Amino acid sequence: MTVKLTEQEVSDALKNLKGWELREGKLCTKLEFENFISAFGFMARVAMRAEKIDHHPEWSNVYKTVNIALTTHDSGGLTAKDLALAEAIKQELEH
Amino acid sequence: MTVKLTEQEVSDALKNLKGWELREGKLCTKLEFENFISAFGFMARVAMRAEKIDHHPEWSNVYKTVNIALTTHDSGGLTAKDLALAEAIKQELEH
Repeated sequence: MTVKLTEQEVSDALKNLKGWELREGKLCTKLEFENFISAFGFMARVAMRAEKIDHHPEWSNVYKTVNIALTTHDSGGLTAKDLALAEAIKQELEH
Repeated sequence: MTVKLTEQEVSDALKNLKGWELREGKLCTKLEFENFISAFGFMARVAMRAEKIDHHPEWSNVYKTVNIALTTHDSGGLTAKDLALAEAIKQELEH
């Protein structure tokens, strides 16, 4: 089981995660794309990264909007795995 | 704008849509797959069909679970477009 981050660690991490916020203990962001192809294309890229690191997002999509919530169910909170996935998502948004 | 289905038409359609139910006026289903690859692979196939018929689902995914809600926003309810997308989803589940 991955160790839960401390409140301080979460707080520090949020400073580097523009557009993300803490909601009900989960790391959340809402993304808007140009259209469905862009939104789902992004999801497909993130899906492969998520599978690769064996940590998956809770996410929803309505046309060009994607909502993401990250948490580590096994650990009952945020862990380094969530930060790694948030970082992977950030990288996909930059490309 | 696509014409809204009558209550009778929705009721008739539901008889042929196993596993779907009406919730808050939307056509909904919850699907369980073997793992994330299967769940997201299914979503990718449906995404391409949705884009092709220019009608997109509201959907969410948590690991191997996919929740789908269909409605036609422009028409303020269910239309033939939702039934067409539900049929496309059914076909993808059978393959």
